[in-house]
Amino acid sequence: MIRVGIAGYGNLGRGVESAVTHAQDMELVALFTRRNPENVKTMTDVPVYSMDKAAEMADKIDVLVICGGSANDLPKQTPELAKLFNVVDSFDTHAKIPEHFANVDTVCKQSGKIGVISVGWDPGLFSLNRLMGQAVLPNGNDYTFWGKGVSQGHSDAIRRIDGVLDARQYTIPVESALEKVRNGENPTLSTREKHTRECFVVAAEGADLKAIEEAIVTMPNYFADYDTTVHFISQEELDRDHKGIPHGGMVFRSGTTGLDNGTKHIIEYKLNLESNPEFTAGVLTAYARAAYRLNKEGQSGCRTIFDIAPAYIHPETPDVLRAKLL
Amino acid sequence: MIRVGIAGYGNLGRGVESAVTHAQDMELVALFTRRNPENVKTMTDVPVYSMDKAAEMADKIDVLVICGGSANDLPKQTPELAKLFNVVDSFDTHAKIPEHFANVDTVCKQSGKIGVISVGWDPGLFSLNRLMGQAVLPNGNDYTFWGKGVSQGHSDAIRRIDGVLDARQYTIPVESALEKVRNGENPTLSTREKHTRECFVVAAEGADLKAIEEAIVTMPNYFADYDTTVHFISQEELDRDHKGIPHGGMVFRSGTTGLDNGTKHIIEYKLNLESNPEFTAGVLTAYARAAYRLNKEGQSGCRTIFDIAPAYIHPETPDVLRAKLL
Repeated sequence: MIRVGIAGYGNLGRGVESAVTHAQDMELVALFTRRNPENVKTMTDVPVYSMDKAAEMADKIDVLVICGGSANDLPKQTPELAKLFNVVDSFDTHAKIPEHFANVDTVCKQSGKIGVISVGWDPGLFSLNRLMGQAVLPNGNDYTFWGKGVSQGHSDAIRRIDGVLDARQYTIPVESALEKVRNGENPTLSTREKHTRECFVVAAEGADLKAIEEAIVTMPNYFADYDTTVHFISQEELDRDHKGIPHGGMVFRSGTTGLDNGTKHIIEYKLNLESNPEFTAGVLTAYARAAYRLNKEGQSGCRTIFDIAPAYIHPETPDVLRAKLL
Repeated sequence: MIRVGIAGYGNLGRGVESAVTHAQDMELVALFTRRNPENVKTMTDVPVYSMDKAAEMADKIDVLVICGGSANDLPKQTPELAKLFNVVDSFDTHAKIPEHFANVDTVCKQSGKIGVISVGWDPGLFSLNRLMGQAVLPNGNDYTFWGKGVSQGHSDAIRRIDGVLDARQYTIPVESALEKVRNGENPTLSTREKHTRECFVVAAEGADLKAIEEAIVTMPNYFADYDTTVHFISQEELDRDHKGIPHGGMVFRSGTTGLDNGTKHIIEYKLNLESNPEFTAGVLTAYARAAYRLNKEGQSGCRTIFDIAPAYIHPETPDVLRAKLL
């Protein structure tokens, strides 16, 4: 059994708790938190420790799944914890991945551990499909669409507007754009042509709804470049109808083959997820298995989904995989 | 530049000829044939040699893409040629993959070469998606649908019926079955419920059409378990409307997460291919790159798509891939 620890206990940490509990070849041995462990109520009977105790547990844990946030937690936590453990994280600030990779790689090479970073679906499974699409169909175009799904960052941006009590924002792919891509038309699509944004907003009593709507739809970076719809609803409606955190999307490779590039092909990879963090946790848990196995072979250093042979993430042996799944 | 050779020049070999010609980091240096080289008319100016000359070219070729058939050619050719070259093949007899793997592995370990087998889309990219779907969503169901596309084996089976001059058979996924899978209903689907078969048949003058149709729809293994439609058309119509070899299909993983497995997710991987052999050639060419790189690192032995880290198949360096595609 692979002994797994979790660092951080939000939605993602809870997802990993479930995923490891269901994994046939893993046992969950510790949960680390920066809160007072006595105040953390877990779903299973996993023991909860203060993050400070992690060093003392180094020989009891084969791989640690780090479930912090990309903005403030992971850039520090992942290199720090990779001194002691094989680690996996879901660092998703695309522009800073090379820097994070370098930091984790340096530590891992010193500690002799494996650090798998940026695991999830984007970055993660979507990235893998972008890479493979380009490799198989070098002459072509990539398209990535997100949604329908909840964007936490956009929901937070709405909540910061004066007079807003709560909000939930959905990113929605434009159906006509999807059709053009699926038909092999290779369209050039502006930001506005790819996605729309739909916002459900709970306003304070007496708030200026017109002003809130205007503040949302004109907000630079977040909404100004999109067709945005705003619905004002009650807190009860928000809690009843918009509690979930669904997400998903599609990666396309639209390319041609043949000496004259006259033959068309479309690859589509599509995710339809009822819970973004629970699915991401599933990917993290699969790559935790890979981190353990790679390190057991004597490897060390930082890895991404690009650097790991797929067989490492499945519980079965390569022999069985070839016989049953190839 | 990676120096690539091709063994065998049918539809697949022609596809590889195009793909290598377009690859930025490859040059096509030789084509080997069992026919008289003087009678082989290639699309490019690649030199054509008799298959017997392959041994003399061992130090001039970095990787050889073997484009023979799975039934009779590859079981012998791939192990034989792996004595001299890094090789890639598209061996697709699923039940015999373990045996083929063992044969190629033994030879490669002696010769110090890499042999990548069973590369294409099924086996190949579809297999990869089956593996990854199970690893990420261990509680769930797999579904593979093929088509709409031409099945060469089924077309051949029709041609062997008395009174049939020519035929083309399409495998078509049943739309209502796809809908159930996409909706997360996790249906149990019989063979008949997953695919229908549509046949376009050119009959000899005066042939008994009723008897031909009956022979097709009741043919065991090929058609008896399916709802099959037969259309009689002229040779001109067949040549005009059914000359292409499109194919494709979908791999689904429908699974749940959460401690009570109450959260649903659907992964769908879909291919829509205008030419089955040209697309397969694209996959072979990408994995030829991997075979070359793995061998250059000093590795030897047999590999499948499960055993190769994705970064090996893309022409860019891992640094660039992380910065641009992750």
